[in-house]
Amino acid sequence: MQAARLHEYTDEMTDALSIDDVDRPTLEHSDGVLIEVEGAGWCQTDNHIIEGMWEEYVPQELPMTLGHENAGIVAEVGDEVTLVEEGDPVICHPVQSCGICRPCRLGEDMYCENSAFNGLTTDGGFAEYLQTNERAVIPLPEGADPTEIAPHADAGITAYHAAKKAADELNPGDACVVIGIGGLGHIGLQCLDAMTAADIVAVDLKDEALELAADLGASHTVNSGEEDVAGVVADVTDDDGAQQVLDFVGADETTGLAPDVLAAGGDHHVIGYGGHVHEPSQTLVDGEMAFRGTLVGKYAELQELVSLVDRGDVALHTEQYGLDEINTVAERLEHGEIEGRAVVLPS
Amino acid sequence: MQAARLHEYTDEMTDALSIDDVDRPTLEHSDGVLIEVEGAGWCQTDNHIIEGMWEEYVPQELPMTLGHENAGIVAEVGDEVTLVEEGDPVICHPVQSCGICRPCRLGEDMYCENSAFNGLTTDGGFAEYLQTNERAVIPLPEGADPTEIAPHADAGITAYHAAKKAADELNPGDACVVIGIGGLGHIGLQCLDAMTAADIVAVDLKDEALELAADLGASHTVNSGEEDVAGVVADVTDDDGAQQVLDFVGADETTGLAPDVLAAGGDHHVIGYGGHVHEPSQTLVDGEMAFRGTLVGKYAELQELVSLVDRGDVALHTEQYGLDEINTVAERLEHGEIEGRAVVLPS
Amino acid sequence: MQAARLHEYTDEMTDALSIDDVDRPTLEHSDGVLIEVEGAGWCQTDNHIIEGMWEEYVPQELPMTLGHENAGIVAEVGDEVTLVEEGDPVICHPVQSCGICRPCRLGEDMYCENSAFNGLTTDGGFAEYLQTNERAVIPLPEGADPTEIAPHADAGITAYHAAKKAADELNPGDACVVIGIGGLGHIGLQCLDAMTAADIVAVDLKDEALELAADLGASHTVNSGEEDVAGVVADVTDDDGAQQVLDFVGADETTGLAPDVLAAGGDHHVIGYGGHVHEPSQTLVDGEMAFRGTLVGKYAELQELVSLVDRGDVALHTEQYGLDEINTVAERLEHGEIEGRAVVLPS
Amino acid sequence: MQAARLHEYTDEMTDALSIDDVDRPTLEHSDGVLIEVEGAGWCQTDNHIIEGMWEEYVPQELPMTLGHENAGIVAEVGDEVTLVEEGDPVICHPVQSCGICRPCRLGEDMYCENSAFNGLTTDGGFAEYLQTNERAVIPLPEGADPTEIAPHADAGITAYHAAKKAADELNPGDACVVIGIGGLGHIGLQCLDAMTAADIVAVDLKDEALELAADLGASHTVNSGEEDVAGVVADVTDDDGAQQVLDFVGADETTGLAPDVLAAGGDHHVIGYGGHVHEPSQTLVDGEMAFRGTLVGKYAELQELVSLVDRGDVALHTEQYGLDEINTVAERLEHGEIEGRAVVLPS
Repeated sequence: MQAARLHEYTDEMTDALSIDDVDRPTLEHSDGVLIEVEGAGWCQTDNHIIEGMWEEYVPQELPMTLGHENAGIVAEVGDEVTLVEEGDPVICHPVQSCGICRPCRLGEDMYCENSAFNGLTTDGGFAEYLQTNERAVIPLPEGADPTEIAPHADAGITAYHAAKKAADELNPGDACVVIGIGGLGHIGLQCLDAMTAADIVAVDLKDEALELAADLGASHTVNSGEEDVAGVVADVTDDDGAQQVLDFVGADETTGLAPDVLAAGGDHHVIGYGGHVHEPSQTLVDGEMAFRGTLVGKYAELQELVSLVDRGDVALHTEQYGLDEINTVAERLEHGEIEGRAVVLPS
Repeated sequence: MQAARLHEYTDEMTDALSIDDVDRPTLEHSDGVLIEVEGAGWCQTDNHIIEGMWEEYVPQELPMTLGHENAGIVAEVGDEVTLVEEGDPVICHPVQSCGICRPCRLGEDMYCENSAFNGLTTDGGFAEYLQTNERAVIPLPEGADPTEIAPHADAGITAYHAAKKAADELNPGDACVVIGIGGLGHIGLQCLDAMTAADIVAVDLKDEALELAADLGASHTVNSGEEDVAGVVADVTDDDGAQQVLDFVGADETTGLAPDVLAAGGDHHVIGYGGHVHEPSQTLVDGEMAFRGTLVGKYAELQELVSLVDRGDVALHTEQYGLDEINTVAERLEHGEIEGRAVVLPS
Repeated sequence: MQAARLHEYTDEMTDALSIDDVDRPTLEHSDGVLIEVEGAGWCQTDNHIIEGMWEEYVPQELPMTLGHENAGIVAEVGDEVTLVEEGDPVICHPVQSCGICRPCRLGEDMYCENSAFNGLTTDGGFAEYLQTNERAVIPLPEGADPTEIAPHADAGITAYHAAKKAADELNPGDACVVIGIGGLGHIGLQCLDAMTAADIVAVDLKDEALELAADLGASHTVNSGEEDVAGVVADVTDDDGAQQVLDFVGADETTGLAPDVLAAGGDHHVIGYGGHVHEPSQTLVDGEMAFRGTLVGKYAELQELVSLVDRGDVALHTEQYGLDEINTVAERLEHGEIEGRAVVLPS
Repeated sequence: MQAARLHEYTDEMTDALSIDDVDRPTLEHSDGVLIEVEGAGWCQTDNHIIEGMWEEYVPQELPMTLGHENAGIVAEVGDEVTLVEEGDPVICHPVQSCGICRPCRLGEDMYCENSAFNGLTTDGGFAEYLQTNERAVIPLPEGADPTEIAPHADAGITAYHAAKKAADELNPGDACVVIGIGGLGHIGLQCLDAMTAADIVAVDLKDEALELAADLGASHTVNSGEEDVAGVVADVTDDDGAQQVLDFVGADETTGLAPDVLAAGGDHHVIGYGGHVHEPSQTLVDGEMAFRGTLVGKYAELQELVSLVDRGDVALHTEQYGLDEINTVAERLEHGEIEGRAVVLPS
């Protein structure tokens, strides 16, 4: 079968991945599930992996097939699988968790001590077939299109997970600032709108992004290249500040907004990772504020997100590409030229 | 009456405060309470105030009487006060809150929008008399000695508040790292021990501090000048890391320990504010870790701490000084020469 | 001034209250607030008070002016009031809390140890003027009409408070059963819809009520006089059951639905109090289910509800009556003839 | 092998179970684990099962080997088991959960949709060998004796789970009433003591039980046959009432205590199931109180309890019996003649 593989880390996206002819995976465990991949979303993290930015954080063996946002049709199952059978359409949580370690027992799949992460620590889904396990697949509701829903496997749950953490702290009348209305941000904003009655202040550098934000439920929009974000937030909140910030950028300039836009006791959720968090300890103490990292999301949260999509609460704009166009996709995302989310169709 | 006042910011502790003769305060509101101060704890924050480190965070008008850790006897009450009467022994929460703004209505006294903070934004208790209000005083249980309990008004609740936030996340068998076993740290450690069944790893540079920690309930101690903290934590936790860290130092080196000692999803609570928080956003994301500032504690938490003291769960080692020795106290704390907590006896 | 007062408990609504000429209240405390009442909602609890059903639960001294759902214009303020001034339109939380006791300090106004409850333990708002205190009033946002918003002071926050407790446990895709789509129920349903992405199953005996429920966001409706509620819930939830139930009736038949409609670990919130809770202990154990009483709501929650109303998320259908028609209102509600909520206009 | 089996429901304990010669179980799944049972605790629920009290709640096929509190040595493992190997000492969570259904994914093992419950819905551990699965076993820490720890598999985690739910709501200075200081109650009391700084009021009919309670950390004891429980709780709590009640009896008289002993907003946890919950809905509303059922506990909670035992925070008094004495055990428990917990040693 064909698979888009990374052979060495590079900053050049034009020929980052090569389309190789490799063996179709063979199921090795009783809980194995083989997926014929119909849709595979391209993610900013794929660019970061290509650049070698994850090498020091996780074990990676090259060459590796990238792709962690997958949906498709079950092609084969291990002999003890009961959840799905051949022919079922599914979305794939990117983490193949063990179900045995303590984090798994607490429902914290992302902290699984024996996990494999598609396209990050094991072969992913920019290929005709993807090998995963029973604990990573979620059957799709009737009518859901795998090529449309694929990006929710990572972009979606990452945004949902962060939005849910914020929603837990948001009361009606509170304000939440959403920084970066891109692939993740525009999903997070819809999740907030569905799960809270908070006022949403959307921040971006591009006016089209802000128009999209307004359409999707933002009550206020700020072009941070032209306006003073803290000033707008102060106006909107009668000088109280925002109780929560979802930072889908994570750059030095965006994390630096925290002390000026947060209400006392507020949280700045770091989702994007473009830069650093840097503040005097005294600043955190004075406003009792927190910087809280957020890492993808749980399997059960992906189920919840699929429900939101099924209810019509969250919509996603996608562009479709063939497997042979994959480096074009990589390059276009690098230059901010993808509208919504790019989905590769390997089959 | 006599009061120890700051006239200008300085780095010299030897004559930082002057003992002035000033008028005894006159109650102006129906909820006013005048306290004859019996004990007034000296805090590292007093040194920071003297150095001008709080000037940019809060409004301060000099000269000002310092002192935010007070206990004493009610000398006079406003005409609508019902909670206490003349002669009652009380401990004073440092914040005079309004009870009207939304944070007050949520029980979040520290975020009160109309508050005064003793010895920080209004005259404090290094004086014979302190003016405060009904919402700031807590009657003492029988047998409690105001000169002993005074430091709990700030050191105590700050440590308790942080310990409670950590305790909410700690299960039996989890580990909590406590960095800095000084005035606050040794209280926080006792609070953790009373409220959780977690393993406590105490970290300090001084062996005597670590011996105290072991006496007070730490299951492991680490001299960070000699041992590798991350290595010890890994050993203690079977490589899982600690679920929570209480950082009573807040220096660059201590906040920098976070990624190496925390378990996935863990929190590093920043209580001391000696330096900065500085990490790549990616590090927060990778371990889903948080840096959470912690600011003093609520009135209701001071009630809870008084219960802990009354139960014998938290003990405090104090040294007593006269009001005329106050600059000596300032200087000795600056040089790390105070054992436990210094309490000034103004009356 | 004129006031509608209860002189003795009775089951006859036709002349339950008498319109008496009484003195206009005089403010006695520095935090007192006198309201010129513009709107005063009539509540099922008023009927219960008339019947003497609250006599054994709270202290009541007759004659007493009833009315605990009030909004109006500030007519006079005590000399230390800062939150409002003469002429401000406000809604009145029914509880005048002290701000001093521990429950108040925890933000739990409903558990205040020194409270007065308008129209239940002290004179209420079926009168030209109502005496209350600063901690009970909430300034209205621009454009809000006191005669429209008045019922939110009790019906509204009771429904909101219950909905918020349920919302804390509801994930997207979960189901919540709402029993009784009357004055409270139709508000609770709108609150759920605004704050969650759960599927709402509305249950009532009247088809018009169910049509209203469908308009307000219910995804499924059940006429419990004609259909098997448990069967419908099983269908809707793939036999999992509903995670939460809001029971605005609280009769024997409705509390008895709990074991058959709840998912494992679910809660049956008892808001109405028409009957009993009665189950074998083993039934609660087997499904780890809970019966949770719910009592009005907090001041801060009334602020949040006012925000929901201001956002347009919660609408209320009201009928207006003169003070002289008050016994007609009492009788009509007793016979289920009020559409939406009756509001008395005393001024 | 020998197994103590129930052939038909009966109220006669003298010959309730028969010691049958049956085949040793054969592992059928890749995650199967065969345990050589060293200790098997006898539980009040075993008496209830014998009486047929669980027949209407769960599927049961007779004859069945009872026994759900097991610990022993791993004798054989399925070919994909990684957590344990032959020879490892383990304690067995009574529920064999699937790890696939949504409750399992949320960490809620007890609500597993595909579970088997040892000795309740499938053969249990009053036998030489017990068949279970990888997700049900927890390796024992060094030094733990399977015959001593066995009862924690159900009595222990049930008590722990309830204590943990209560602990989440208990602040220092709050009060918790523990009703019934028997097999479960004396564990729950120790868990509370280890995890909270609340005052514990122990209630029982037997003075020896109350003496044990005082030894284990109760601050007050009440003989409910001789003293007025509500009066004592009022005294202890300055008339505030207890924030939490753990009711290990669940009889009509004990659940009936709730309104008189609970503080506003408090919870009455129903663990024992000897009778009914019966109260007017208005009573639940007036005090915003809850009756919360509690069902065994999660796998992760059994890990936490094993940590508590390992720390020395929870001790258990056991009596040991041979498999042939099992009906004597049944009868003695029925008559309240077991001190602590009876453990059967089948091997």
